[in-house]
Formats: sequence, C-alpha cells, structure tokens
Amino acid sequence: MVYAVIMAGGIGSRFWPQSRESNPKQFLAIHDENTLIRNTLSRLQGVVPDEQVFVVTHRRYVDRTREQLPSVPEENILAEPVGRNTAPCIALAALQLLARDPDAVMIALPADHVVRNVGRFHKALQAAVRKAEEKDTLVTIGIEPTHPETGYGYVQYDSQADRNGDDMEALPVRTFAEKPDAETAERFLDSGDFLWNSGIFVWRADAILRAVQRHLPKVFRAFKPLRNALGGPQETEAIAEAYAKSPSISIDYGVMERAEKVFVVPASFGWSDVGDWTAVYALRKKDKQGNTLKGNAILNDSSRCLVDANQRLVVLIGMHDTVVVDTEDALLVCNRESAQQVKNVVDYLRAHQLEEYF
Amino acid sequence: MVYAVIMAGGIGSRFWPQSRESNPKQFLAIHDENTLIRNTLSRLQGVVPDEQVFVVTHRRYVDRTREQLPSVPEENILAEPVGRNTAPCIALAALQLLARDPDAVMIALPADHVVRNVGRFHKALQAAVRKAEEKDTLVTIGIEPTHPETGYGYVQYDSQADRNGDDMEALPVRTFAEKPDAETAERFLDSGDFLWNSGIFVWRADAILRAVQRHLPKVFRAFKPLRNALGGPQETEAIAEAYAKSPSISIDYGVMERAEKVFVVPASFGWSDVGDWTAVYALRKKDKQGNTLKGNAILNDSSRCLVDANQRLVVLIGMHDTVVVDTEDALLVCNRESAQQVKNVVDYLRAHQLEEYF
Repeated sequence: MVYAVIMAGGIGSRFWPQSRESNPKQFLAIHDENTLIRNTLSRLQGVVPDEQVFVVTHRRYVDRTREQLPSVPEENILAEPVGRNTAPCIALAALQLLARDPDAVMIALPADHVVRNVGRFHKALQAAVRKAEEKDTLVTIGIEPTHPETGYGYVQYDSQADRNGDDMEALPVRTFAEKPDAETAERFLDSGDFLWNSGIFVWRADAILRAVQRHLPKVFRAFKPLRNALGGPQETEAIAEAYAKSPSISIDYGVMERAEKVFVVPASFGWSDVGDWTAVYALRKKDKQGNTLKGNAILNDSSRCLVDANQRLVVLIGMHDTVVVDTEDALLVCNRESAQQVKNVVDYLRAHQLEEYF
Repeated sequence: MVYAVIMAGGIGSRFWPQSRESNPKQFLAIHDENTLIRNTLSRLQGVVPDEQVFVVTHRRYVDRTREQLPSVPEENILAEPVGRNTAPCIALAALQLLARDPDAVMIALPADHVVRNVGRFHKALQAAVRKAEEKDTLVTIGIEPTHPETGYGYVQYDSQADRNGDDMEALPVRTFAEKPDAETAERFLDSGDFLWNSGIFVWRADAILRAVQRHLPKVFRAFKPLRNALGGPQETEAIAEAYAKSPSISIDYGVMERAEKVFVVPASFGWSDVGDWTAVYALRKKDKQGNTLKGNAILNDSSRCLVDANQRLVVLIGMHDTVVVDTEDALLVCNRESAQQVKNVVDYLRAHQLEEYF
C-alpha cells in the first residue's frame, strides 16, 4: 500500500513575525485561507487515504498538528524530540511503516509547500509510485524550472534516456546540485535537463532503509534498535535515544546524491516552496497596482506591496515593493528584495534572547 | 503689560495616526519628550509670566490644555465653540485682554511650532514688542529662509529701509505672499528680502481690534457684543453667538495683507512649523545611517527612516526614506516625500465615517 509521510519539522523563521517558534510556517495560512499543512493533507486526497498519512513533527507541535489534521489517526503523528534534518525523520517514518506493512511505499513530502495544479501533482506522484515499486529504486519529483532560481537545489536527469513526450515518467538522475549562484542557475536553465529539487520523494520503506544502512550507517545504527521498541511502552524513550545518537543530515545529501538507482519524475504542477514573503507575494492575487492585501488596509499611491494587516488599520502612502506584516506584538516592514534577510532578524532576536518575539 | 495668546485650535491631521481628533498635534511630543503646547509655554518664560498667558482652543480641548499647562490660570483658557480660523480667535483674545488691561500688548503665536534657539526667539519678541507699542502698529515675525520652501507663506520687507546689520529690528512690510510654487520659492530665496511667515504676531490689543473693525467688519460686528458679556453669566452663550455669526478667515489674509502700519522682525531662531512627519524627521537627531527611532525598533540595511514604535516591536529591513508610525490601533508606513498626503488619508477616513480612526 501507499503511505504519505508529511515532514513538518521546520520553524520557518522567514515568515516572522507571523511565524514564531510557537507557530511555525506549516501552521500559517499564508497563501489562502487554510494552513499550509492542511492544504498538504488535502492535496493527497485521491492518492493516499487519510488513515495512511503520517506526520513527523517536533514533539512541541504534536497537539497543534492533531488539531489541524483531525482526520489523520492520532497514532500517525510521530514526535521528534529534536530536529535532525530529513534523514532521521525518514528513517523513523520508514520503520513505523514497515512495522505495519512490509510492502509499504512511502511518499515523503514537506508540510509547507504550495501546489496549484493538484491533478498534475497526482499524476507525478502516481508515476513516481509506479517506479518506486521496482526493488531498491529511489524516486524524487523534479520541477521543470521556469526561471533561474538561486534559492532551490537542482536535479539533473540523464538526457540520453528516452522521454515519451509530455507524459510524466521517471528518468535516471545524473546528479544533484546545491543552490547555485546566478550564473550557474542560468546555465542550468539553458541546459534543459536540470530540474528544481522539490524535496518530495517516493520509495519503498524497505528500500530507503537499506539505502540509509548503506550510505548513512551512523543514522541506521542509531535507529535500528527502534524496530523492537515501536508500539511498546519504551517507544518514546527509544526514539529519544535514536535522535540523540543520530547525526543531523539531509536525505538528499546523505542518500540521494550517493545511491545508485535514483530516478526523477519531471513535472510541473505550479509548485512553490514558499520560502519567504516574496514567494508569498508571487503566489497571491494582486490588484491593478500589483498590491495584495489581507485585513484592514488603505493604500495610497502605492504599488507592488504585500500587506498582512491584523487587528490594526494599516495605511501605506507612496510605498512600492514593500512587505508589511503586522501582528499583535511585532511589525515587519521590508523591501520585497530583502525578504530573505528576515531570517537574520530572527537570528538576532534569538542571539539577544528576546524570547517574546521569536 | 505684555500678554501671550497661544492659538491651539488645530487638529493637525498630518500627524495621523498619532494625531486624532481627540488628540491633536499640540498635545503630541513629536519633537522631544514634551508636548508641543508645553514647549510653547516654556519658551515664553522670561518674556511673559504664566499668569499673563492665554490659550484659545476648541472647547473639547479645554480640559487637556489645563492638564498640560497647570501653571496657566484656568480662566485664561478660552474655549472656542467651533474653529473659525485665526481672525475670530484673535478678536476673542483681544477683547479678553482689553477687559483686563486697556494697554495690553499681545503676542499671538501657534501652539504647535518648534523653536530651537530660545534666546534669539526672545530677542525677536522683544524687538516686536518695542515696535508694537507704537500706536496702531501690527508686527509679525519673519523667519530668514534657509531653503526654497513651498510649504510656507512669505513676507517681503521693504529693502529700502535701513537695517542695522545683524540686530533684529522691525522693518516695514511690502507684501505678503501665499505658499509659492517651486520656481517662485527659488526667486523669493534669491531676492533676499522675502521671509517665511511664522504666524507669530505682536500688537496692542486695541490696535488689532481697530484693524479688525476696519478690515473685517463682519468679524468685528459678530464679536462686539462680547464686550459687555465677558466675565458675566452669559459669557459662554455670547461667545457661541459671536462664533456663529463670524465668518471663518485668517488674520493674515483678513487684516495683515490689508492694513497699513505692518512691520516684520526678520529673525532666525531655529523655527519650524513641524507641518508633517518629514519636518519631524528633519528636526530629530539621526544616527549614522540617518535613522531616527523612538521605542522598540530594529533596523537592518535601512537608512534615512523615522520610526515611532509604540507597544510593538518594529523591524525594518532594506527600507530607506520611510516613515513608520505605529499606534495601538493604526499604523502608518509612508515614503518621506509623501508625508503631506497623510492629510488625504484622514480626509478619506472622515469621508468614510471611520470614526474610530480619525
């Protein structure tokens, strides 16, 4: 059977002041009226039934996750005692799935992305699942790039492989590339065989575990003892021990870049990782002046602005390309080009122990 | 004796969201830690004792004015039932002074200006008072212009008149000019004999009343019956009647531009009428990046900004030449060049009956 594992570990500080340690990105309704994690679950409908959906999140977010996803069985919300990047998260989920179903196929996907064309998203998943049913095959979804984005990692497929026209199909991966500089991103775009790395993976649970065992033996050794503890009274303690022992590493870097039978399904389904307020601006509907507003806002002689008002009336005069996000206790006013720097401010707040604000 | 009349009738909507109908500009501490009206009183010390200071304000601001100026006798706070520009305000004050002192010399000055050099301000007032002691002489203070400002009216003095070097002395006025366009303002500056019209006047109470009688007979007729009612049980009613009958007109336009013995004392004492947030920016101390901050604000990669934070933390990233004023229920984000337009927003709020915000 096919299962989904929603990875909801992040705290998304780039969406400060809306995102806080107590209210990370996946719980924000930054794109439409629903939270990102709820939309992530919704768009799996038709591919994976809710009772076969699992979520891995930090233990402090378990309750909020249950509130947000009441149709997901409570026992499917897996708590991490500490964030250790994606490899441990996936190892934990794979072990859980195997305990339930030795033939489990697992779709692992982030909780905080946006997809606009769900039909095409489903087709890509189905193509990936078909490929992943082959023994020890690891599949990722690659997004056909629309511009030379420097904020994403890339996957290059083997352009020698036959492609059946437009149909989504799994192609052998030649290489993975980290976030490129602007020049390299241009080159990637021109090449035609580089795709954006979506962070969405499909594999059999046993296959990814074997790959972890081979390429990330330390992670494997940390998690191996869990096999006997899962479902038992020692489960929480065993998980805490596994995370304490495991290194922090991504599945991309730790496994995908090193494994052999790695495939990518090239797809385009209106995907965005919604990395910062500028990405939110790009996603939202704009008026004639290019402004996009939520809440009680009056704009005068202003254009290309994003305003998220909250309780207060927000007035902009003569402002352009500006992000204004107002919350009860903090306000952000930011040039659209500077949205990435929001993270630095949160780092500053942390460094200065201004707990009330991060 | 010399008296001061502080004109505190305005509602100063250009300082929205700090200024409100319930909290007009004169009650704001927009320049330093004191309200503008309190500073206006303080800077009269040494020229006019507090018990000889009068304030004319809208009746709704009488209590707040008393709170702000506890050293001014309560009976010196004169209530206007409605704003009718400066001519009625001055007629009322002149009648009150005459009832007390037939030789009263009156310094009339706005409540919401800023003066940085109080010593030179005093010298200018003293020169004006000396001149105003001559029969039927009306004196205004003119500010030596430092730039071709289009936001002020101008006064031209008679350049044929002898000037004693740097000493402040009263010179005959040749003409008054309304706020000029940019080109005209340049010409005024180049001419050397145009001064900014400060709105500060000095005259004998009887002299200005005679001038009102001659040049604004309708105003005079409206206020004449007050002579007998002042101090009596019908005072409030009589004042209400006078204002109801009086046209709304400024003393500049109604009297100064038409009268004969009009003099100006050219002076420079760091004066500003603090007309909008840009003027506040100009007045405040700036850091190396040209930013000036009040309250809890963090600026990153930002320059030449004015931030007035209130309860909330305010964060600016990549912002330049921006005014951010945060209050409990409303927030302004404004380009410094657009500060004049704040008034339009308040007009909009009024037109849309958004009472809670204006």
